Amino acid sequence: MPEIHAARRRALRQRFQDAELDALLVTDLRNIRYLTGFTGSNAALLVHTDGDERSVFCTDGRYTTQAEAQVPDLRRLIERPSALALVRDADERLARGATVGFESQHVSVEQHAVFTDAAGSVLLARAPGLVERLREVKDDTEIAALRAACAAADRALAELLEHGGLRPGRTEREVARDLENRMADHGAEAVAFPSIVAAGANSAIPHHRPTDAVLAAGDFVKLDFGAVVDGYHSDMTRTIVLGEPAQWQRDLYTLVATAQAAGTEAVRPGREVSAVDAAARTVVAEAGYGEQFTHGLGHGVGLDVHEAPSLAKTGVGTLSTCMAVTVEPGIYLAGRGGVRIEDTLVVREGTPELLTMSTKELVVA
Amino acid sequence: MPEIHAARRRALRQRFQDAELDALLVTDLRNIRYLTGFTGSNAALLVHTDGDERSVFCTDGRYTTQAEAQVPDLRRLIERPSALALVRDADERLARGATVGFESQHVSVEQHAVFTDAAGSVLLARAPGLVERLREVKDDTEIAALRAACAAADRALAELLEHGGLRPGRTEREVARDLENRMADHGAEAVAFPSIVAAGANSAIPHHRPTDAVLAAGDFVKLDFGAVVDGYHSDMTRTIVLGEPAQWQRDLYTLVATAQAAGTEAVRPGREVSAVDAAARTVVAEAGYGEQFTHGLGHGVGLDVHEAPSLAKTGVGTLSTCMAVTVEPGIYLAGRGGVRIEDTLVVREGTPELLTMSTKELVVA
Repeated sequence: MPEIHAARRRALRQRFQDAELDALLVTDLRNIRYLTGFTGSNAALLVHTDGDERSVFCTDGRYTTQAEAQVPDLRRLIERPSALALVRDADERLARGATVGFESQHVSVEQHAVFTDAAGSVLLARAPGLVERLREVKDDTEIAALRAACAAADRALAELLEHGGLRPGRTEREVARDLENRMADHGAEAVAFPSIVAAGANSAIPHHRPTDAVLAAGDFVKLDFGAVVDGYHSDMTRTIVLGEPAQWQRDLYTLVATAQAAGTEAVRPGREVSAVDAAARTVVAEAGYGEQFTHGLGHGVGLDVHEAPSLAKTGVGTLSTCMAVTVEPGIYLAGRGGVRIEDTLVVREGTPELLTMSTKELVVA
Repeated sequence: MPEIHAARRRALRQRFQDAELDALLVTDLRNIRYLTGFTGSNAALLVHTDGDERSVFCTDGRYTTQAEAQVPDLRRLIERPSALALVRDADERLARGATVGFESQHVSVEQHAVFTDAAGSVLLARAPGLVERLREVKDDTEIAALRAACAAADRALAELLEHGGLRPGRTEREVARDLENRMADHGAEAVAFPSIVAAGANSAIPHHRPTDAVLAAGDFVKLDFGAVVDGYHSDMTRTIVLGEPAQWQRDLYTLVATAQAAGTEAVRPGREVSAVDAAARTVVAEAGYGEQFTHGLGHGVGLDVHEAPSLAKTGVGTLSTCMAVTVEPGIYLAGRGGVRIEDTLVVREGTPELLTMSTKELVVA
């Protein structure tokens, strides 16, 4: 795959002119993986505007062999701390007064002070979000990985239901482990985030962590979980009822499903992200539950489970073809229960491509 | 437990004088958990030098109920972004020219720019590591949690071996999942980090991630794994041989075990951390393998799996009673195999307290 990574570095360089950079120091590990394929836990990368001949990758001694295999196409330094080594390297090799951008939304104030001391005749310039913006639009390799990650989650849920894994008497924790093991059976290399399994009144807590609470008949059970495949994350929420649903549960479920469909319908290239949020939020607000929908509608998903763009009231920007996003409205009634329904989607001309295939009909387990 | 957290905030305040702070803005979530008990995924805390009456905690609407339960003893704001809300609150409530420290090793350059814009008449001052230094020395509650986390890992490994879970034909991934499920059975709320299971030549890769590689007779199998209990992490490595060990394997194992014992023996209050590293490293270097011991000897462990102090050549400072640290020398022979042996220990007067109890005799599975 070195060609893919070289192409991404070329696309990144095209953004240097606007930012007036001679080079960009990349220190975020997800961004480094995106640009090189390197998967270790310590690295830094300097992408030079002139091309890969002048770019350089750095990691430490634990990853010498791995770096040779994964980053064969760049000059490699083995040194720790790696980012500091590349600042020094830039000072030695670049022209006096050359401008090196750094990822100022990731670099801490302390790190920046250390870099500045080492920069010598090179200028360090804040350059936030350059790689993140590139990462918003996914290529085919990335979409294939997202599809596989979503499929692992879909299969895990289908199996859980088939095997009666959602039943009164089990604990939230047991259900979470069951789901996670089944995702691993279907190719997940990790869980995308700590799974949420929230039963009964706990389902009204948006980010509830599984406890030893026991599932009971009549409960809403909210399941928010995902798999990682080739570094890419899936993110899906389904809310299920144990036994015969009460009317208020049917009504709440139908309302959230309607909002979710409206949000999905609004996912189109060129659409403002705030307008996508509004499409779903209006449905909820008009039914009188605006205050109980306490979070944004969705977010980008890829090498990070939460990445740009943010589909929220305060979100800025428009959707483009091949962005991958979640659509996940929720209504939370404190003390009673809550419903959230979430899909991972790819923005396409016309209607979006659905990656999470599990039914959104109300499932009674 | 509010008393424990109030006591920790008092201890923190005692460090404000040296740093000439009127307040400290705490934004790292582990530090916030340490100081308040709050376990949500978004929060900020302002600890005022005058006392808890003037301190304030902030989180967002998802955590209103949780914050009432976990942080009953502080004024609470519900706002997002939470850290920015506390900067504004400080500007409103603190005297003109008051100095508010911020965690400059966690706050990014971009965040800092936003904080500075909002600070008004309040001065923001770099104040790195104040809470981290406090966290180095553990109290009884913390040591009890570490002990439970280490016990979960010990029991998981014992069961894995009892049930023949380490045998030719299984994959690294299967073994990792098996270990992780058994840790959950014994009370782990999460894994401390992605487990390392490295068989055969893979054991020579210090931070190998489990693959579909199949375990074979004669392999070294290196297992580096840990559990989280009440937020506290355990960290243990054992290296096992499948079937009858070759002489080079016995020799390598004995050497690493000797170095590990020498490192453990050097763990004493008042000892320089670099001297502890040297105690183990000298054993390895004198046997001619200095170049193959490619990492530091160990690290602090607690709410983070890697925290201060760093037991390394370049480490600075001395050990104190009730610090929790790992001791983990390793020798890695590329293409052949490697051995690492790691314990989690608590520094005590005299010899340290061992928390990871699994045998360090060479286990033949």
